[in-house]
Amino acid sequence: MAGAKLLTGNAVVGQSGGPTAVINQSLVGVVEGLRAGLKATGNVQKILGMRHGVNGLTKGDLIDLTEVPQDKLERVANTPSASLGSSRDKPDKDYCAKILKACEQHNIRYFFYVGGNDSSDTCRIVNELARASGYELRCFHVPKTVDNDLPVNDHTPGFPSAARFVAMAFAADSLDNRSLPGVKINVVMGRHAGFLTAASALARGIGGDPNDGPHLIYCPEVPFDTDQFIADVEKVYSKIGRCQVAVSEGIQDKDGVSIGAKLIKNGQVDSHGNVQLSGSGALGDQLSDLVKARIKNKDGKPPRVRADTFGYLQRCWPDASVVDKQEAREAGRVAAKAAAAGEMDGSIALIRAPGNPYRCEFKRIELSDVAAKTKHMPKEFIQGSNDVSQAFIEYCRPLVGPLPVFDRF
Amino acid sequence: MAGAKLLTGNAVVGQSGGPTAVINQSLVGVVEGLRAGLKATGNVQKILGMRHGVNGLTKGDLIDLTEVPQDKLERVANTPSASLGSSRDKPDKDYCAKILKACEQHNIRYFFYVGGNDSSDTCRIVNELARASGYELRCFHVPKTVDNDLPVNDHTPGFPSAARFVAMAFAADSLDNRSLPGVKINVVMGRHAGFLTAASALARGIGGDPNDGPHLIYCPEVPFDTDQFIADVEKVYSKIGRCQVAVSEGIQDKDGVSIGAKLIKNGQVDSHGNVQLSGSGALGDQLSDLVKARIKNKDGKPPRVRADTFGYLQRCWPDASVVDKQEAREAGRVAAKAAAAGEMDGSIALIRAPGNPYRCEFKRIELSDVAAKTKHMPKEFIQGSNDVSQAFIEYCRPLVGPLPVFDRF
Repeated sequence: MAGAKLLTGNAVVGQSGGPTAVINQSLVGVVEGLRAGLKATGNVQKILGMRHGVNGLTKGDLIDLTEVPQDKLERVANTPSASLGSSRDKPDKDYCAKILKACEQHNIRYFFYVGGNDSSDTCRIVNELARASGYELRCFHVPKTVDNDLPVNDHTPGFPSAARFVAMAFAADSLDNRSLPGVKINVVMGRHAGFLTAASALARGIGGDPNDGPHLIYCPEVPFDTDQFIADVEKVYSKIGRCQVAVSEGIQDKDGVSIGAKLIKNGQVDSHGNVQLSGSGALGDQLSDLVKARIKNKDGKPPRVRADTFGYLQRCWPDASVVDKQEAREAGRVAAKAAAAGEMDGSIALIRAPGNPYRCEFKRIELSDVAAKTKHMPKEFIQGSNDVSQAFIEYCRPLVGPLPVFDRF
Repeated sequence: MAGAKLLTGNAVVGQSGGPTAVINQSLVGVVEGLRAGLKATGNVQKILGMRHGVNGLTKGDLIDLTEVPQDKLERVANTPSASLGSSRDKPDKDYCAKILKACEQHNIRYFFYVGGNDSSDTCRIVNELARASGYELRCFHVPKTVDNDLPVNDHTPGFPSAARFVAMAFAADSLDNRSLPGVKINVVMGRHAGFLTAASALARGIGGDPNDGPHLIYCPEVPFDTDQFIADVEKVYSKIGRCQVAVSEGIQDKDGVSIGAKLIKNGQVDSHGNVQLSGSGALGDQLSDLVKARIKNKDGKPPRVRADTFGYLQRCWPDASVVDKQEAREAGRVAAKAAAAGEMDGSIALIRAPGNPYRCEFKRIELSDVAAKTKHMPKEFIQGSNDVSQAFIEYCRPLVGPLPVFDRF
């Protein structure tokens, strides 16, 4: 519903949820978009940044971004993680009242929130309560998540850079595993969706060996069965003398119970009810113990088994995908443009244009289209119970950018 | 003892121990050095590569590297991990007899072995048994180890690239930890020596914040006390609301007992008696549990605590230090030159030239100077019980190369 009356006042931008390598690109994109649009037309006076999302907003912990020089913006854009600080707060009605009070106090009329599923829900809640209270506020969500699980979007800013890290990591680790063969299990981020784990498949071929890993890929979309897992590993190991495995931290058993969450002693829970999956090696260690116990070499001893959990480096490694950087920036700019076009609210979705070469378009969608919803890997991206399809590889490759090429004797 | 009679026959080169991001540079350096020297003078006919170290040699699993084109050598040199395959075999007398028989069979007179402490010992054993048996063989060791724990050497090829990874990882992770504050524990490789864990200190200042992590650094050289650890974390956390910790996988209690080794269920042991420390998240998880149990916020709940174990990516990440690449290559070339100069045997040591700018020299030393010996961090590199000194930072900085510069609002 573009063309609504433009409001006059200040704009605020915040970052929320797990940070990524390019979430600052989106933040800078919003600032640039506002400067070129609503600031230039005089509708926006000040561009403010919330420290630690809505938490900072309610406390008046705001910084003035109106006059930050372009070279500083550029440097911040190329810095991983949330420069303003992030938050996992889930605002209830009282919290929202505080948010609206802070908006009133600072004459904020434009609200931009960069985040994932939970953050888009925060944005939706703030939007709805503003309307209900009669406080005129334009609320926009800018997508980000390494899990790549926002609906409507072809993919989400943050995912391509994390996928790049995962592909590089599996390629290098597969070479290491070829040097000193054994079973190597790598646990990859992804609460409900297997996209990031699937990105490990891009490592194949980089090492110049038809036997390059990963040899097995386990996503949360396929129920994980430990007997099948052992049989799979044994099959690969007995054939080529080694086996590199990609396992999502979010794998679930046939009843939909998270295997990792059960294993983490004293796992912590955030205000959105998400149980800690990252920041622990428990899942990898458990699978490693299983392999040691159940697979034996001819001498009766288990193979060499190691597990790595890639952890937070996946979302902050400072070698972002170039495509991701550009798209994350553009998503922020487009959100500011939507506000300038008189949109009342919305989220910005990344839609892949048909055909080759790869091209991405940006489209305003309803907040309710993404808020608190999760996209899973589509069936055509999954192959059997332990692999991904060529369709996934073709989907993912243009996002991560050029990968190194290795050679071997 | 340069100037000994040159032998005529073939040369063999192998890689051993944990691979690194630049161990192929040394392999290619040996090949190049032989081509320019003993091959050019006609003393060496064939340049052979052992598959998986002495294991491949005894089985006749050799590949001919004599005529590999330079562009292929270049690509392999820039590929992480051991292109020939590595080995952790520890040859006893029978094993050595097989090695000498293989040398005889393939008319091998020059033996080059790229590896760390255990591999230099393998080289020493082969050398001594060849002498004892009267089989004329020239044995040379080319240093590598991410642990940086070879004596005599200022530093060891492989360490600078691993240190680069660790510094980048801590810098990016510190930004992540600033976004969503809490206690973050990162476990770093290093069996007995803390150099690699200490390299985390290079991350300070990259994020543009005087409070950048790591805030605490625990090396194996300082006995680890859990009460002191909790007190240290609490002090930092209560002051700045977050705490990033670097912990060596090799930390030991006051009795010299490895804390990590005790925690890894069914930890595996190699033929040199090294108990598995990497490839498990147990140490990080245990420390994480400790913090959750013993540190509380004002609301009585523990802080957000996460642990990552950086694992094998530290030694194979495909973004090697430029200095490391050059030095690893040169170490291989110098070993081949030493053989051409009529040295009977030896290891190549990297010696830092005095003064600025940074410069490194290469020197032949005795195999017995390094074989199976371990260097620890010198006292002047350690500060108190949980930090490293400025002297260490000045020592380490020229090795890792330029690091990214970040900015923040």
